[in-house]
Amino acid sequence: MAYVNEHYLKLKAGYLFPEIGRRVQAFAAAHPEARIIRMGIGDVTEPLPPAVIAALHKAVDEMACRETFQGYGAEQGCGFLREAIAQNDFQARGCDITADEIFVSDGSKCDTGNILDIFSADNVIAISDPVYPVYVDTNVMAGHTGPANEKGEFAGLVYLPATAENNFTPALPQRKVDIIYLCYPNNPTGTVASKATLTAWVEYARANQALIFYDAAYEAYIGEPDVPHSIYEIPGAREVAIEFRSFSKTAGFTGTRCAFAVVPKTLTGKTRSGSACEIHKLWTRRHTTKFNGVSYVTQRGAEAVYSPEGQQQVRKTIAHYMGNARLIRETLAQLGLPTWGGVNAPYVWAQTPGRATSWDFFDKLLATAHVVVTPGCGFGAAGEGYFRASAFNSRENVVEAMQRLKNFRF
Amino acid sequence: MAYVNEHYLKLKAGYLFPEIGRRVQAFAAAHPEARIIRMGIGDVTEPLPPAVIAALHKAVDEMACRETFQGYGAEQGCGFLREAIAQNDFQARGCDITADEIFVSDGSKCDTGNILDIFSADNVIAISDPVYPVYVDTNVMAGHTGPANEKGEFAGLVYLPATAENNFTPALPQRKVDIIYLCYPNNPTGTVASKATLTAWVEYARANQALIFYDAAYEAYIGEPDVPHSIYEIPGAREVAIEFRSFSKTAGFTGTRCAFAVVPKTLTGKTRSGSACEIHKLWTRRHTTKFNGVSYVTQRGAEAVYSPEGQQQVRKTIAHYMGNARLIRETLAQLGLPTWGGVNAPYVWAQTPGRATSWDFFDKLLATAHVVVTPGCGFGAAGEGYFRASAFNSRENVVEAMQRLKNFRF
Repeated sequence: MAYVNEHYLKLKAGYLFPEIGRRVQAFAAAHPEARIIRMGIGDVTEPLPPAVIAALHKAVDEMACRETFQGYGAEQGCGFLREAIAQNDFQARGCDITADEIFVSDGSKCDTGNILDIFSADNVIAISDPVYPVYVDTNVMAGHTGPANEKGEFAGLVYLPATAENNFTPALPQRKVDIIYLCYPNNPTGTVASKATLTAWVEYARANQALIFYDAAYEAYIGEPDVPHSIYEIPGAREVAIEFRSFSKTAGFTGTRCAFAVVPKTLTGKTRSGSACEIHKLWTRRHTTKFNGVSYVTQRGAEAVYSPEGQQQVRKTIAHYMGNARLIRETLAQLGLPTWGGVNAPYVWAQTPGRATSWDFFDKLLATAHVVVTPGCGFGAAGEGYFRASAFNSRENVVEAMQRLKNFRF
Repeated sequence: MAYVNEHYLKLKAGYLFPEIGRRVQAFAAAHPEARIIRMGIGDVTEPLPPAVIAALHKAVDEMACRETFQGYGAEQGCGFLREAIAQNDFQARGCDITADEIFVSDGSKCDTGNILDIFSADNVIAISDPVYPVYVDTNVMAGHTGPANEKGEFAGLVYLPATAENNFTPALPQRKVDIIYLCYPNNPTGTVASKATLTAWVEYARANQALIFYDAAYEAYIGEPDVPHSIYEIPGAREVAIEFRSFSKTAGFTGTRCAFAVVPKTLTGKTRSGSACEIHKLWTRRHTTKFNGVSYVTQRGAEAVYSPEGQQQVRKTIAHYMGNARLIRETLAQLGLPTWGGVNAPYVWAQTPGRATSWDFFDKLLATAHVVVTPGCGFGAAGEGYFRASAFNSRENVVEAMQRLKNFRF
């Protein structure tokens, strides 16, 4: 028998969302009459924008004809899409990012996991808590941690607690770390980083020769002015940050699959003997050897997101979701639950009534109100006693769910 | 600066196909009048089958409407596609493979690289030479090898030479190995494994508790009876083999991206202390944590490949390519060059005239005949003195290229 990667055996039994799915399925099977409203997994509910649909149809027609058929493309993505991204998402905001620093991919979940391939196990890694579980799990799989303790914290990781006391904005690490995961607008807490906060991180990274993995998958939900949309709005970030972006939440691509990573050519890593290595070169080698590019049809769809009609349509859908977020936020506040997020992010993070454990609240809410939320503890030990409610839904569902919450007694 | 994965620094300068692209571009820039015929990279040239086009359009329309919109699907693939694969590709051939053993992915290149995530560096790995370069490069990246020697062979790998003497069918290893890469129909040599050959491999694996990675991306090109289409046609293979398949060459999906891996539930690996681990569980954890599924639209397109019209259309395109392969094979034979493959595979493998080095022949053929082939040495040290010609082309191009070869004097 072949030897397995034993680091996998350190992982907790299941990824959070399959466990939620299991409990919801079990409840639905036992109560087929219950009309369950899902505010758990962060999946979009509204259709693709018409501009994207039109672009997809056009690209499918190209694939039907020998003269316009597209086979293998560049693994890094088609030039038209990389250019559109660089111009619209970065240069238009004054960020000095060029098309050849954009790596189109099939998802930010994939990218944030795969990026670890080009780094060694020698790095000290800082991760906020609560956090998107994939950051932790992929580090465990890669052998960058020891085993977990009874709270589920893995030895070797530097956890940066996000708590009610610090307004769910973790402080800089007390010690030197090599790699820092930041996610703004944050999943799960919905909080954002101000320009001052992000500047402090970039300065920390520059002073400590650290690298920031900046996950901005929810960037499109930023509504307030003065909140940075990209880490590259901060001077000096080109030397210390990789940014991850996605069309999933921006344009409803969760089932269509397109995202990208920004890897500036000015980033360097080092070998154990101290010589410098260009990160862009390493990632190019990884991306071209272990990935084969995103579907041409999908890339044409993503390009259409940047058209004037696409932008207008995307903004309308986001306004719809953010209307839901506002309803959720206001209802929970009326119920006396402290909340965070829901202003520049499609997630509202809230304390459970009476500080019940996350899973107790989840189970009781499912059983009596038939509403699914995400247990905060699924995002890390510091999430215990909290839950995440997602704004991805129809307005009727959110109105109905909020009514049920008002009638709910824990 | 973060510490990098230093194993990447052992890799050779560039992946084979970008290097070919570079030389062809340089020649084209210097000779804009030359009509270059590309028989190098193995990319398809014919459009998607009409049945696939219709299914893609229909699925795009589903994405336009709230009621039929598809968000996140199961990372392992949609049930309809996993069922279609299990029934048509396996059960119909008497192979005992079920839908929950199929993992839909965005490419076999990705799968054959990513599969290493769940195995440790303790395995002894056997790879044929010449070989698809990704098998070697991903093992180097994962730290499963030492540095390369001057011939480009990496320390720690067990090379299984495929030569004219053994008819490009490598013999079983002389020593015990833990993981074996097999690719049939073979890329680059176009050879196939008979039932007897595959049975010997399965028996070796069972006797030595080894695991076989079976890459059958070119399965659809098998035309002769009695050539196994799947390793699971061999009794006992469920206990020792993972099979990789792709829609890329079967149905022209190189730019559309859909493939799958078959991971039987009966496969086990072991920890260093000797306890057994289910490979299916490990791969499920990897696939659900680091991958987000294939585009719903693409999966509907792949499903249509199995419809009666889809099957008929796919067979017609493959017959076209195999007509090209026959022309290439016969022309090279007339020129007195020993050839292999081209009967059950879209590749013809041939000795260079006068045993010239692969790159010398490549450069001369490009410069004088304006025809691009793939240098055999790009597939490993044992490929030196050979070249690969691909049948993916229009008939006119192949006829014209063969005429130029007949006039070519090395």
